[in-house]
Amino acid sequence: MFWVYAAIVVSVASFLLAGYLYYWVKRQPGGNKEAEEIAQLIRRGANAFLRREYKILAVFASVVAFLILLFLPHPIWKSNFWTNFRMALTFLFGASLSATAGKIGMDIATIANLKSAVASKKGIAPAFEVAFKGGAVMGMAVVGCSLFGAAILYLLTKDPNTVLSFSFGASTLALFAKAGGGIYTKTADVSADLVGKVELGIPEDDPRNPAVIADNVGDNVGDVAGMGADLFDSNIASIAAAMVIGLSLGQQHMVFCYATLGLLASILGVLFIGMGKHKDPGKALNTGTYITTVLFAVLTLVVSLAFKYDLRIWGATMVGLIVAVIIGITSDYFTGDGKKPVEKVAKASSIGPAFTILSGFSYGLLSCFPALLGIGFSALVAYKLCEPLGASYAMFGISMAAIGMLSIVGMIISNDAFGPIVDNARGLVEMAKMGDDALVISDELDAAGNTAKAITKGFAIGAAGLTVIALLGAYRETVMNVTGSDISFNIMNPLVFFGIMVGLAVPAVFAAMLMLGVDRNAERMVAEIHRQFETIPGLKEGKEGVRPEYEKCIDIATIGAIKELIPAGLMAIVVTLVVGFIGGIHAIGGFLTGNIVSGLFLALLMANSGGLWDNSKKYIETGVHGGKGSDAHKAAVIGDTVGDPFKDTAGPSLNTQVTVVSLISSLAANLFIAFSLF
Amino acid sequence: MFWVYAAIVVSVASFLLAGYLYYWVKRQPGGNKEAEEIAQLIRRGANAFLRREYKILAVFASVVAFLILLFLPHPIWKSNFWTNFRMALTFLFGASLSATAGKIGMDIATIANLKSAVASKKGIAPAFEVAFKGGAVMGMAVVGCSLFGAAILYLLTKDPNTVLSFSFGASTLALFAKAGGGIYTKTADVSADLVGKVELGIPEDDPRNPAVIADNVGDNVGDVAGMGADLFDSNIASIAAAMVIGLSLGQQHMVFCYATLGLLASILGVLFIGMGKHKDPGKALNTGTYITTVLFAVLTLVVSLAFKYDLRIWGATMVGLIVAVIIGITSDYFTGDGKKPVEKVAKASSIGPAFTILSGFSYGLLSCFPALLGIGFSALVAYKLCEPLGASYAMFGISMAAIGMLSIVGMIISNDAFGPIVDNARGLVEMAKMGDDALVISDELDAAGNTAKAITKGFAIGAAGLTVIALLGAYRETVMNVTGSDISFNIMNPLVFFGIMVGLAVPAVFAAMLMLGVDRNAERMVAEIHRQFETIPGLKEGKEGVRPEYEKCIDIATIGAIKELIPAGLMAIVVTLVVGFIGGIHAIGGFLTGNIVSGLFLALLMANSGGLWDNSKKYIETGVHGGKGSDAHKAAVIGDTVGDPFKDTAGPSLNTQVTVVSLISSLAANLFIAFSLF
Repeated sequence: MFWVYAAIVVSVASFLLAGYLYYWVKRQPGGNKEAEEIAQLIRRGANAFLRREYKILAVFASVVAFLILLFLPHPIWKSNFWTNFRMALTFLFGASLSATAGKIGMDIATIANLKSAVASKKGIAPAFEVAFKGGAVMGMAVVGCSLFGAAILYLLTKDPNTVLSFSFGASTLALFAKAGGGIYTKTADVSADLVGKVELGIPEDDPRNPAVIADNVGDNVGDVAGMGADLFDSNIASIAAAMVIGLSLGQQHMVFCYATLGLLASILGVLFIGMGKHKDPGKALNTGTYITTVLFAVLTLVVSLAFKYDLRIWGATMVGLIVAVIIGITSDYFTGDGKKPVEKVAKASSIGPAFTILSGFSYGLLSCFPALLGIGFSALVAYKLCEPLGASYAMFGISMAAIGMLSIVGMIISNDAFGPIVDNARGLVEMAKMGDDALVISDELDAAGNTAKAITKGFAIGAAGLTVIALLGAYRETVMNVTGSDISFNIMNPLVFFGIMVGLAVPAVFAAMLMLGVDRNAERMVAEIHRQFETIPGLKEGKEGVRPEYEKCIDIATIGAIKELIPAGLMAIVVTLVVGFIGGIHAIGGFLTGNIVSGLFLALLMANSGGLWDNSKKYIETGVHGGKGSDAHKAAVIGDTVGDPFKDTAGPSLNTQVTVVSLISSLAANLFIAFSLF
Repeated sequence: MFWVYAAIVVSVASFLLAGYLYYWVKRQPGGNKEAEEIAQLIRRGANAFLRREYKILAVFASVVAFLILLFLPHPIWKSNFWTNFRMALTFLFGASLSATAGKIGMDIATIANLKSAVASKKGIAPAFEVAFKGGAVMGMAVVGCSLFGAAILYLLTKDPNTVLSFSFGASTLALFAKAGGGIYTKTADVSADLVGKVELGIPEDDPRNPAVIADNVGDNVGDVAGMGADLFDSNIASIAAAMVIGLSLGQQHMVFCYATLGLLASILGVLFIGMGKHKDPGKALNTGTYITTVLFAVLTLVVSLAFKYDLRIWGATMVGLIVAVIIGITSDYFTGDGKKPVEKVAKASSIGPAFTILSGFSYGLLSCFPALLGIGFSALVAYKLCEPLGASYAMFGISMAAIGMLSIVGMIISNDAFGPIVDNARGLVEMAKMGDDALVISDELDAAGNTAKAITKGFAIGAAGLTVIALLGAYRETVMNVTGSDISFNIMNPLVFFGIMVGLAVPAVFAAMLMLGVDRNAERMVAEIHRQFETIPGLKEGKEGVRPEYEKCIDIATIGAIKELIPAGLMAIVVTLVVGFIGGIHAIGGFLTGNIVSGLFLALLMANSGGLWDNSKKYIETGVHGGKGSDAHKAAVIGDTVGDPFKDTAGPSLNTQVTVVSLISSLAANLFIAFSLF
């Protein structure tokens, strides 16, 4: 039990650090009246959205909790009431913790944006510090909550099913938070760009644009609250999967040990970070990640030697770190400045927008190969590495690779939340007219934030990849525990094959529903922006004192996102249940496999081609192929607009969709065994 | 042996019919001097391309044949020389027959285009008759060749391996013919549209456009020769798969019986077709298909009852027909006029091109669900239907479902080849100024041809889907024959999982390589068109007697396509061998599965979203959202340009890629067993 207590102690330490950083950021000097006012608008908009979203999700979670009470792990009339009650309660616990982590992150992000904007008048180092510390609050809170929750539940129940249910709660909330936030942010972003940049040719963050506040709110609800919920959920799911498999081997202490050391490494990494003598904010962020990674590798090696843990398992954990690197390098090559794809897409844009789309999409397809190969190969290596310890250890190896990859998640979330904070700060500097020097600095921080976001997105996909493979193992473990016999999912079994085909289609449908949601929503918002420019006198000309009706746009984004977020998530859950009740456990084995592979594939495709379009546009803006305003630039803007929902709405939500489906399958395995048609 | 001889007799009948139709079309009256001249240019361009393509492919096929001689079915130093020699020879036989079928089809298509154009001056019924009979030459030749080849080989060798090798020869040729033709046709089409329609606003098929002849050549080399090779290859592959599985059950006669009845039904269908009293060419085509389908169902039922074949197998065959219907309905809904997706995409286009792309892509994603579900479910039903006859019969049922689906392929190819013939005819009417009445008629036939093409594309994908599932069964059968023991591909085996991941990525990489090929090629051709318009005086203004240098564009398309067609196909083959030699037979089992499912998924996505963009553009051209020349129309044209390589280059080539990989795996199974790393 040593490592369980250690997990609790280190989580509490991370809470303390988060609290300290929160008050540190809050104590920083505020801005002028105009800046305060705009920041207030953003904060209010973000909170209004979150309140409405959480209200809907509370109803939804209650319904699900009630269904869990009735049916899981067994129908209540065949089961102990308190067992089912415990499952329902842990589900709600997971959902609440996830919501809380998102709320904390958004609170600090909507404070740190203004503070960072103000600090940028003093120089890049202070502005960086404020933004990073703001992000770190989120990082520490998220990882602390997940480890704390898992440890407490294990301490109280010793039942891996409750950890699965806890994870399911977190994932369900993440699924909807991500989908809702993603639709919100891209509705606002795309509409603001389309009318502002493309039609009227006014700059980004121009206060005349009625959608500009909604756009800034979107960064917070999509990238902070959404991404936090996503990584929170991957982190818990990886712990849950490793625990289910580890418990049957009596190795659950290793799970807590490695997860705890990962959080410890992240805490130390956060404390060490700073601009130092570097002038380059991107390098400062990367240095922090490297320190954390090395710390984790060294700490786990030392502890494994000291506690005489088998080094093969340590090796499997390291494999996870290596996948993270492969995916990072791939994302960087396919979306990075100065690399061939960005240059080719920029060149293709000079022929016409159709070529922007075709070449970007093609490179996106190519980018899947190294990443899928990397995930597949590392799962193979982790498996083969641990196989000599016994057959079940092989799957445990894969689950520990996922733990390894997610070990540095505290640091990753901190970097990730940095992005929207500096993005917002840049908006505030522009809108509140804080001066050109501050604008240059906040531009530089914004660029660093964008690069960090591209890398963390790749990381999130890879982490989810290994986690869901581990969850497939956990599903098999659960089924074997129930039936008492070995099970294999043979592809030549037509039920398995049928499951694969359906599983394959679900992420595609899910992604399509979200993107069509953005489409519909943006249509409404574009119409509203047009209306304001046409009916508010003096708005287009920028007459002193004339302000657009920001709230109208915020309302459209909020109502639209709320309306669109439920159907897609529900579809994924319902299809899983239908396949399970028709085809039984074999069909679900195939279904999970199809879902995992196509989810990863689409997520990589969308994240990378979206990032590629974005950077190609920026590359043209540096002056090549005619620079800003040229035909090539217009084509690139179209590519970027297509890429936005790819990379920020559908792509990142897919991880969560796959995780939710995997968790549901394990939890409902009993029911599928008892009640399936085939 | 009765049905083997019957197969030969009916194939010969189909050859006779093809010969009769060929000379009938050739005897039709020719056109004026100008029309003859243009038709001559198209014919010459098409033949020049085919000659160069076949020259390269002859070298390639010889190398592969030599490798087969050395290594298949066993390395020659461990094997009988004559066995290997026979394999190499049948490979070359398959490749040559496929090439011949393509050549015959193209010959008649480049004759029928002019004859149909001339006939359109007399009315729609004569023009329809010429074009349809031209297409039927191709249909009869292709199906006749494939059934004849398989029957002769079976008669001579009784060895299913030689049929596999024959099929591999046909597929390899089809792979490159499809890729090469697809790159050629879309290079020319996209470039002609981009400069002609978008930049200069001149109509389709305007003789001033330097790329206009290349565009018409492309229809022939891509849609006639390429699609013919594709369906030739699916047809043989389905027979080969069913024979491998059927032989172990002593049921090979049923394969020949059903395939022969299918060809017979197609012959009768072709004889019955005609415009009759209908005014609607689309209805006439559909009526032919319905007649053939019903004839096939009745004939097989009667024969099965007469010969006392088990009706469960007949049922499985009918399941194949039903999938064809499901996929047809799906394609029709997601791409058809008057349906929601076309209207929504047209509406989205009025906001901007990014929304055209996003909504079309999203509907493309949605369209995969019913088709994948249909294929998966029908495989399940065919399997369960035949399972009571014995375990091996279950897989035989799936292979017979594929035979069922491909039974009407003679009719399908006839309809399909109708498309490019009337498309070309329309071009000739426009370019040779044959008058407005003829233009209206040829426009109507062109529209019917487009609809037919969309349906046959869906059919080709579905047929390939069931065929490759059957080939997966054939692969398993082959492995079991070699090892003498049962084998299962368990997803939890990390080698299988690794195979799935890699297999999944291959179609994506393959599609990307082809599309980037079109990109590169079109860049060159657009530059050449610009050059001609700038340097040839009087061209832009349409001065009497001024002609663009058509040959330059034909050269660019030819050279580019030849250069780009080898790498993508080679990549698919090499990756298969690498996975096999590293991961062995288990990894290949997973690899095939991943490859099949992602190949089907991408093919459906690309075919349907491409068709959707095309029809949305046409819908806007009827006058909605501002009609031709409006912003919505410009956006829709961008969507259509993206969709062109989706639906005509990458999408349809994917079937063939999946088939080739599946055949290679069965053929090289011995080697993987003997020499793999794991």
